[in-house]
Amino acid sequence: MINHIAEKFRAPAHLQLKDSDASLRVFISQNENKAEAKAADKLSTLALAEKISDYQNILYGQKQHKLLIILQGMDTSGKDGTIRGVFGQINPLGAHTVAFAAPNTLELAHDYLWRVHQKVPAKGELVIFNRSHYEDVLITQVRGWIDQAECERRLAHIRDFERILSETGTVILKFFLHISKDEQKQRLEERLSDPDKNWKFDPSDLIDRQHWDEFQTAYSEVMMATDSQHAPWYIIPANSKTQRNLAIAHIVAEKLESMKLAYPPANPELSKIKVL
Amino acid sequence: MINHIAEKFRAPAHLQLKDSDASLRVFISQNENKAEAKAADKLSTLALAEKISDYQNILYGQKQHKLLIILQGMDTSGKDGTIRGVFGQINPLGAHTVAFAAPNTLELAHDYLWRVHQKVPAKGELVIFNRSHYEDVLITQVRGWIDQAECERRLAHIRDFERILSETGTVILKFFLHISKDEQKQRLEERLSDPDKNWKFDPSDLIDRQHWDEFQTAYSEVMMATDSQHAPWYIIPANSKTQRNLAIAHIVAEKLESMKLAYPPANPELSKIKVL
Repeated sequence: MINHIAEKFRAPAHLQLKDSDASLRVFISQNENKAEAKAADKLSTLALAEKISDYQNILYGQKQHKLLIILQGMDTSGKDGTIRGVFGQINPLGAHTVAFAAPNTLELAHDYLWRVHQKVPAKGELVIFNRSHYEDVLITQVRGWIDQAECERRLAHIRDFERILSETGTVILKFFLHISKDEQKQRLEERLSDPDKNWKFDPSDLIDRQHWDEFQTAYSEVMMATDSQHAPWYIIPANSKTQRNLAIAHIVAEKLESMKLAYPPANPELSKIKVL
Repeated sequence: MINHIAEKFRAPAHLQLKDSDASLRVFISQNENKAEAKAADKLSTLALAEKISDYQNILYGQKQHKLLIILQGMDTSGKDGTIRGVFGQINPLGAHTVAFAAPNTLELAHDYLWRVHQKVPAKGELVIFNRSHYEDVLITQVRGWIDQAECERRLAHIRDFERILSETGTVILKFFLHISKDEQKQRLEERLSDPDKNWKFDPSDLIDRQHWDEFQTAYSEVMMATDSQHAPWYIIPANSKTQRNLAIAHIVAEKLESMKLAYPPANPELSKIKVL
């Protein structure tokens, strides 16, 4: 049973994102009414989010395991929404999100993994990366800031880095939120037209959009080069926000379940203590 | 000419520290009087230290290169003395030393390279590690805190980590300060008898001393496993403090010379500026 659902989303050995359906609905509702199906997805996700929160409490109490969750995807693919929807129930004690924006001067003066390594989870922590070191082989490659040889070197670094993290006790889950170009168009238009969403619109998103196909190819190659048993990639069809959250919640909950978390054994002395 | 002296100290492919003479005097003075020979060593070292300081100024102005110097050795082998003697002339702007003591609680909650990666040099910096990630495969191994399999895993991590640093622009030099067991005895006794040196005496040094041979073997194996063109080990006979400093000063100066450092080209606009 364990990781039963995760396997459905695991990146295949030969990945071509352009042939992968971003609208795929993996979780079929009995309900044919669209709004009701959506509501059902949300309820299921909430139940899983609460389960994730319970597990994370044990993770924090046990202080043995480290869980790193990496979210990647094109602009508007729903990284922020995933964090709210799937991890919104979590106790912030021992859990946090790190958003990697364009590197600052100090970060640029170091190797590109320097700022990333600083932010990996400690024992007992669950950390979510909103973007990550994968930007250093994606936008950099598509915009031509690094050449093919440098990209290959970095892919090797990333494999080494994630193996080091894994072998020193970090469980890693990597999610690609897969939306279609049409879906992005709608979402960007919403950011432009809805005053409450204006602040999320960044004109440079349009430049990346012009390179849509190159990004899809780059993502496909990067994920194939960095997928492993200890740091697997999951391709999440993300045109539907509720299906996206439900998929990620399932995969995270399954992984936490498989980690056989347990609160540390109670100190036997506790039973002798009288609170006066 | 370049790296001419460094090659004399480079760790051999088959290294057995127990057969390596810690009293070897590589730099022969014309002067037969011991005190005068020592003074000559010191003068030569000072000249090189000034050269290193000049190079480091350019390194700092150019902000392109990163230089990482790792000092390892048994207790009393002279790591602090090397820093004073070889790097004492350096402008602290852009150069600093990091001493890695036993890890604290936060550091222990992360992988053992976490605290180390944070301290690597930025562009334009020269950083000296007084002890380093090598402790995580030395004392840990000798004291039996990690088993052989974990030690092998860590040696692979360290090779990967140093290759990542190197491929992202860090020049790495690693020095083992090689003293004999007799020499350590004298130096520890001095720490016990000289009130000005009492503070440096740590009773746990005596435990490591009891494991002298195991440390020599562990060091030999660890250095063979982690020596590479991009992160070479130098074995410095260190029973003589002046010879030790002279050797390290030569190697560092040679490396800096080979880096072909240059101040960034002056802005042509400068010539048009009038200071009124």
